[in-house]
Amino acid sequence: MAHISLPDNLPGIVGLLAAYPHTGRALSSLAHSLLHSPETSDLEHWQREFIAAYVSYLNCCNFCYASHRAAAEAAKGVEFGFFRPFFEQNELSTSPDYISPLFEKLLKIAQSVQGACKAVDSKLIEEARSAGATDIMIHETILIAAAFCMYNRYVDGLATFSMPPDHPSYWEMGQQLVQKGYQR
Amino acid sequence: MAHISLPDNLPGIVGLLAAYPHTGRALSSLAHSLLHSPETSDLEHWQREFIAAYVSYLNCCNFCYASHRAAAEAAKGVEFGFFRPFFEQNELSTSPDYISPLFEKLLKIAQSVQGACKAVDSKLIEEARSAGATDIMIHETILIAAAFCMYNRYVDGLATFSMPPDHPSYWEMGQQLVQKGYQR
Repeated sequence: MAHISLPDNLPGIVGLLAAYPHTGRALSSLAHSLLHSPETSDLEHWQREFIAAYVSYLNCCNFCYASHRAAAEAAKGVEFGFFRPFFEQNELSTSPDYISPLFEKLLKIAQSVQGACKAVDSKLIEEARSAGATDIMIHETILIAAAFCMYNRYVDGLATFSMPPDHPSYWEMGQQLVQKGYQR
Repeated sequence: MAHISLPDNLPGIVGLLAAYPHTGRALSSLAHSLLHSPETSDLEHWQREFIAAYVSYLNCCNFCYASHRAAAEAAKGVEFGFFRPFFEQNELSTSPDYISPLFEKLLKIAQSVQGACKAVDSKLIEEARSAGATDIMIHETILIAAAFCMYNRYVDGLATFSMPPDHPSYWEMGQQLVQKGYQR
């Protein structure tokens, strides 16, 4: 049971956004600008959702992992569950074809941000630049990773409920998020 | 030196908000609704800034700690540096008079959120409720703590520069934030 009174049947952050609309609007706008708006991005849509899913997976936040993995799959145009093996094996060293050398370096930066609050090692930044990373890519990778250290803690800190990661409702949610975005 | 190109002489998050205005606006709106707007709060203004400073201190994020400690001091109407001993001793068990039993329990919840992404222990929630915590207080404590796990990682992950915590510019910044808020 969640630590505070929340609407029934609204899992994860969905119930929190509904119950606390004032902060909910600000949180939704931030997610929209990070994951959906094209203005600030040098990354593909699915890659931004993938970073969100990756950090959520590392933070063991089931709801955020499952919903953003589904959004990444929907944005990439692959079937629900396509990216699951990557997360379950969790081995950046044996990345599948869809993880380019550049994207792999960016995921390592995201992993570093998730781990602790400190400067990302300059070596990781240099490796990403050598693989073609721009300032904008580095900025959005670090900010998406940092933001999911917030969303994950918000959702799990308050002990909200969620369904298992392969529940079909995540697929519906992921498709909606990719089509309509996060803004309320 | 910061990991990406940023305007000179704008420390911490200030340079990031200026260089990346699209995400900057969303981040500022969120800070405004968490720390400045009265609509969603059962806490005093200085207490919200204090939670932000406390989590930033635990995350070793010098810029966020110093600016939000100054904002907490400005909101409380005490002199610059008044709250410093609390953070430097970092002992919730020997809290000064201005930390009520209720606020002490809320700071323990914030500390738990900062430490790791997991449900806050029900015991900490029950203790806070016994001391008078409302749902709204628990919600805002957890969300402010979670949000500073983002802001701190954003500011430090990108290796932005900052001044030492007793630099007078933080006092000016803190007073401005308390008077005008965060919205851009």
